[in-house]
Amino acid sequence: MITSLVTGGAGFIGSHVVKHCLAAGHKVVVLDDLSGGFEDHIPEGAIFVQGSVVDDQLVTSLFAEYKFTYVYHLAAYAAEGLSHFIRRFNYNNNLIGSINLINESIKHKVKCFVFTSSIAVYGAGQLPMREDMVPQPEDPYGVSKYAVELDLKAAHEMFGLNYVVFRPHNVYGENQNIGDKYRNVIGIFMNQIMQGQQLTIFGDGEQTRAFSYIDDVAIPIAKSVDIPASYNQVFNIGADKPYTVNELAKVVSGYFGVEPNIKYLAARNEVVHAYSDHAKAHGVFGEGSGVTLAEGIAKMAAWAKVVGARKSKEFENIEIYEKLPQGWERKAPQTEAVPA
Amino acid sequence: MITSLVTGGAGFIGSHVVKHCLAAGHKVVVLDDLSGGFEDHIPEGAIFVQGSVVDDQLVTSLFAEYKFTYVYHLAAYAAEGLSHFIRRFNYNNNLIGSINLINESIKHKVKCFVFTSSIAVYGAGQLPMREDMVPQPEDPYGVSKYAVELDLKAAHEMFGLNYVVFRPHNVYGENQNIGDKYRNVIGIFMNQIMQGQQLTIFGDGEQTRAFSYIDDVAIPIAKSVDIPASYNQVFNIGADKPYTVNELAKVVSGYFGVEPNIKYLAARNEVVHAYSDHAKAHGVFGEGSGVTLAEGIAKMAAWAKVVGARKSKEFENIEIYEKLPQGWERKAPQTEAVPA
Ligand SMILES: NC(=O)c1ccc[n+]([C@@H]2O[C@H](COP(=O)([O-])OP(=O)(O)OC[C@H]3O[C@@H](n4cnc5c(N)ncnc54)[C@H](O)[C@@H]3O)[C@@H](O)[C@H]2O)c1
Ligand SMILES: NC(=O)c1ccc[n+]([C@@H]2O[C@H](COP(=O)([O-])OP(=O)(O)OC[C@H]3O[C@@H](n4cnc5c(N)ncnc54)[C@H](O)[C@@H]3O)[C@@H](O)[C@H]2O)c1
Repeated sequence: MITSLVTGGAGFIGSHVVKHCLAAGHKVVVLDDLSGGFEDHIPEGAIFVQGSVVDDQLVTSLFAEYKFTYVYHLAAYAAEGLSHFIRRFNYNNNLIGSINLINESIKHKVKCFVFTSSIAVYGAGQLPMREDMVPQPEDPYGVSKYAVELDLKAAHEMFGLNYVVFRPHNVYGENQNIGDKYRNVIGIFMNQIMQGQQLTIFGDGEQTRAFSYIDDVAIPIAKSVDIPASYNQVFNIGADKPYTVNELAKVVSGYFGVEPNIKYLAARNEVVHAYSDHAKAHGVFGEGSGVTLAEGIAKMAAWAKVVGARKSKEFENIEIYEKLPQGWERKAPQTEAVPA
Repeated sequence: MITSLVTGGAGFIGSHVVKHCLAAGHKVVVLDDLSGGFEDHIPEGAIFVQGSVVDDQLVTSLFAEYKFTYVYHLAAYAAEGLSHFIRRFNYNNNLIGSINLINESIKHKVKCFVFTSSIAVYGAGQLPMREDMVPQPEDPYGVSKYAVELDLKAAHEMFGLNYVVFRPHNVYGENQNIGDKYRNVIGIFMNQIMQGQQLTIFGDGEQTRAFSYIDDVAIPIAKSVDIPASYNQVFNIGADKPYTVNELAKVVSGYFGVEPNIKYLAARNEVVHAYSDHAKAHGVFGEGSGVTLAEGIAKMAAWAKVVGARKSKEFENIEIYEKLPQGWERKAPQTEAVPA
């Protein structure tokens, strides 16, 4: 019996990975603190444990109890742009949480540790991003993801722990948290349209991204453990064709039968163009599903119309308020004056 | 009035940095948890606060109270070889602790944040190590140091926080903790000789290192804040001339009037040769003190004879026991069987 741990399995990509693992016959345990996920997105048949990967005692006891064959580690707080303002939270959640899992995976001789990193590790370098480039991340989110990648490599060299690292980008599809105002422009647009709000775009909207339909990401992640050629390798994963955010606004609006009504906000600190080369992933996992942006948006829009708009939650524990981008501002809480 | 925070100021390099800052007229606050330092190494005139950089509330209150002009962040647990076995502790102490300080330095508009990284960030790449190479650290200690470097760069780009990063290597001299059996081969040798023990060497002793006398490291660190050309730059720092560990054993033994009596242990996972290029530091900080290995060892040996041998402490919280190098073994604590 194969037993897999899927952290973040109540989240967007994680819930799809759980589905594919169940279909492949794994016993699946989901560890998710529901900070960004939804219990009702967890596919039936999975065992759900509500808790955080940062809780090392919980992590230790789960490994002891279930003796996992594989670990799929997707739990993270992935708001890249916000990570400048929540540095400590970012490293704690995304790095220390990962280290707890790596420690236990070493001790329990887990067969393969699958990790979702991000193209955020590359930084604003040459395009297209290729796996043989040496990453130079430029924000705390990217730094935390890269640190986990490097730690996995060290754990492999020293202890023989096998890993597969995926660097997805701009994934969209059913089960996405469209109520997260800090990330995922497609979900944000759908949520705004359904609430009759303007679509907000940072900068002039001419920045480009290659938006990736969920199947092209979740299926290779789930099946990687069965493909030895993927072990101890890093893969870019996702769609090839870049679109501007303005083009995207048009496509999404079209599926809701409205004209794009855009509010342009001050540009924030982000890379203008980002797209990656997927030749390596195609070589190992085969070509993708072939779902086009129009088709993928149609599927997601159909789902979004059923679940309806979601109220955007504010992130509660902003650490630095200075330079927080327009639309994300909250007042700093009044602090007690400290006697000099 | 210039007020400087020196974290790790009760430690080896930190205590020397405190001395130079006091001499330059700074008011100096030392934050040190004494996990590896000694209160009596803190130079007179500094304000000592015992506590950890990981304690974010303490860090926050210190910044509010003292409004630091400069931060010299030297606190770390620097046992590189041990870091594989204490991953969580390593990232918590060396990365999260650093992030607490970076957060407050951004908020309080500290003028310059000086950070002691390490040549451990380079990994086993080309030699000599040069600052224009893109680091690829290979152990958790190096990963944590590199993550802090990258985070500082991001903090500079986003918030204008100035930093200076130093990458020292194999520093030795007065005030070193010669009772730390996990690091600092010169201190280990002196401690072993004074206790009539054999000198222990991992591998054949033909690995080389360029041992750096403390003045060549602590003086540039202390004065960097006054040299704008050093801002937002990374510097290798230390001695140029490499020696084998066998040669070193001979030199150190000589100063204690004994023949080298060496016990060779199984090689551990470490780079065989490590030396860095210091042209960049020399250009900005001038040539070093010119203290040779023989002179530096003589000074340190004279000091060590006065303070005497120290009992080596075991590191208490090993996370992974598998593959712990010879001489570092401790039994894993008995754990309760978890019911299946
Ligand atoms: N969606 C993308 O475009 C994209 C791109 C690159 C990388 N990724 C990575 O893929 C993974 C999944 O992202 P997603 O888009 O599905 O995000 P998501 O927010 O939908 O899913 C993340 C899940 O992790 C959970 N979680 C967060 N912190 C946790 C913690 N400390 N303990 C336990 N659970 C925790 C959340 O509740 C959520 O269910 C993340 O690691 C993310 O960094 C996503
Ligand atoms: N000595 C070297 O050869 C060398 C080489 C490269 C880098 N470094 C770096 O230089 C710095 C100083 O190293 P050192 O050789 O003086 O080591 P050290 O152990 O003598 O000094 C470190 C000091 O930090 C303190 N400390 C550790 N964790 C702390 C925490 N969480 N909060 C507060 N204080 C804490 C210790 O008590 C100690 O006094 C470290 O950052 C180290 O990584 C040293």
